[in-house]
Amino acid sequence: MSLLIVGTIAFDAIETPFGKTDKIIGGAATYIGLAASYFTQNMGLVSVIGDDFPKDYTDLLKSKNINLDGVEVKQGEKSFFWSGKYHIDMNTRDTLVTELNVLAGFDPVVPEKFKEADFLMLGNLTPLIQKKVIQQMKKRPKLIVMDTMNFWMNTALDDLKEVLTMVDVLTINDEEARMLSNEYSLIKAARKIMEMGPKYLIVKKGEHGALLFDKDQVFFAPALPLEEVFDPTGAGDSFAGGFIGYLDKTKDISFENLKGAIIMGSAMASFTVEKFGTENLINLTKEKIKNRIQEFVDLVQFEISIAYK
Amino acid sequence: MSLLIVGTIAFDAIETPFGKTDKIIGGAATYIGLAASYFTQNMGLVSVIGDDFPKDYTDLLKSKNINLDGVEVKQGEKSFFWSGKYHIDMNTRDTLVTELNVLAGFDPVVPEKFKEADFLMLGNLTPLIQKKVIQQMKKRPKLIVMDTMNFWMNTALDDLKEVLTMVDVLTINDEEARMLSNEYSLIKAARKIMEMGPKYLIVKKGEHGALLFDKDQVFFAPALPLEEVFDPTGAGDSFAGGFIGYLDKTKDISFENLKGAIIMGSAMASFTVEKFGTENLINLTKEKIKNRIQEFVDLVQFEISIAYK
Repeated sequence: MSLLIVGTIAFDAIETPFGKTDKIIGGAATYIGLAASYFTQNMGLVSVIGDDFPKDYTDLLKSKNINLDGVEVKQGEKSFFWSGKYHIDMNTRDTLVTELNVLAGFDPVVPEKFKEADFLMLGNLTPLIQKKVIQQMKKRPKLIVMDTMNFWMNTALDDLKEVLTMVDVLTINDEEARMLSNEYSLIKAARKIMEMGPKYLIVKKGEHGALLFDKDQVFFAPALPLEEVFDPTGAGDSFAGGFIGYLDKTKDISFENLKGAIIMGSAMASFTVEKFGTENLINLTKEKIKNRIQEFVDLVQFEISIAYK
Repeated sequence: MSLLIVGTIAFDAIETPFGKTDKIIGGAATYIGLAASYFTQNMGLVSVIGDDFPKDYTDLLKSKNINLDGVEVKQGEKSFFWSGKYHIDMNTRDTLVTELNVLAGFDPVVPEKFKEADFLMLGNLTPLIQKKVIQQMKKRPKLIVMDTMNFWMNTALDDLKEVLTMVDVLTINDEEARMLSNEYSLIKAARKIMEMGPKYLIVKKGEHGALLFDKDQVFFAPALPLEEVFDPTGAGDSFAGGFIGYLDKTKDISFENLKGAIIMGSAMASFTVEKFGTENLINLTKEKIKNRIQEFVDLVQFEISIAYK
């Protein structure tokens, strides 16, 4: 097992200015796994679902070479359910319903064959669960990437800070970076956050792209301007999946290669938001991804032709 | 005369979370001219000031090879004065004072020798004044760039729309693009606005960079992440100055070269916001600009190293 992903598998009900869904499949691990599946075929999920979860969908994940041996099925219980409504700017949303269900008692068990994964992607979950997964690994993965959110900064900051000392890359959004560091300038925020543990920080800015920091360098990946953003749900997780999948494929964790990984993450996120839920993400082809990457290249490529004076 | 710039020359009093200024020199034409002066030495301003405007500062502008023959000095009147206060995010501000003074009766007169300029930059002013300047040109400039703002969309929309049919490039911010087009998606907004006249649209997104559109293409110039943004006043105008100065220097108005011009504009804006008012902009060197451009190159340059599957 080369890539281990930990995160939620869930039902989502989504409302955006463009429409509304019934319960559809969502969850961080779902988006991460699907996005990563275009790059790596050697991946396992650790998650938990109820017995209400449709076999069609677990079959679909398996057909993408996503190993589900680490996904616990709790008989007689219901899967995690989230419902949210997006505002017109699509960068802000209200949570309408959160039913933790199986997630409330989730105690992750990493199957033996996943314990030597090279890459570990910790989707957004309570920091304690993220820590439990790290502690079960037999050898330190080459790279541990952790996603988190403001909710844990408000409710479990000490745990969060402990996990930060155990990971290599943290992904959060700009507002969360400011909250965690108490600095408005993202440069200063990044410096402070990296002092808390991670060697790299990725700041996700939604439609405004993403920044990658290490101690000395910064890289910016734009978001692709899209005709229409239909549903931002899963964008951050698709980003993480493209990012970690690309790294697992290339096995290169230099800053230079992380740049490419972030562009790949941005490309995967751009597909996800074009349709509701995972609809677009499950139907990609190598050709579509290639073309999209070319769009990113064209978007930022420039030449300066004079000596300025 | 190769480049003609029309816009305000003003006193500004600025308050930001980092400090406060007394009356300092500002105005769109000031920033545009100073930024452009690093690329072209063949430029004139059309503007109006009162007899309270300091000779030291007009001398400074002249020393930058900015021809002020088109700047009317109204005896016994006061220069335009603006005062504003920025919020912590630096993207929003409150106007505290606007004293039009000389600007109230401004009737631009383009000196004879400016009437055949190749490049015309219309800084933010009432659309009627912008129109009057265009009408005084003896030959159609190669490129007319127009800046405007939401205020004119609310108070002089018909005039604004008329001027839009006369220009090649419009620069506005994202909120204004949405307001003018009544479209949330910037891609759709750009399409609608270009149907109103301009061949190119530049959407300025402040700390989130800028987008350049033509009918078929889009280019994104990032903003440089800065340690500290001290004062955003003049950022948009410095951007415009770097943009038009670079175009005047290179004499190439292809989409490809417009990309370089936008990066140059972004570089000039990044200098301006690092200090209050024009302080940073008046002290640049070719070396500083070269280094900053390299930072932009490093910021977005990446390579993708696999065939994605």
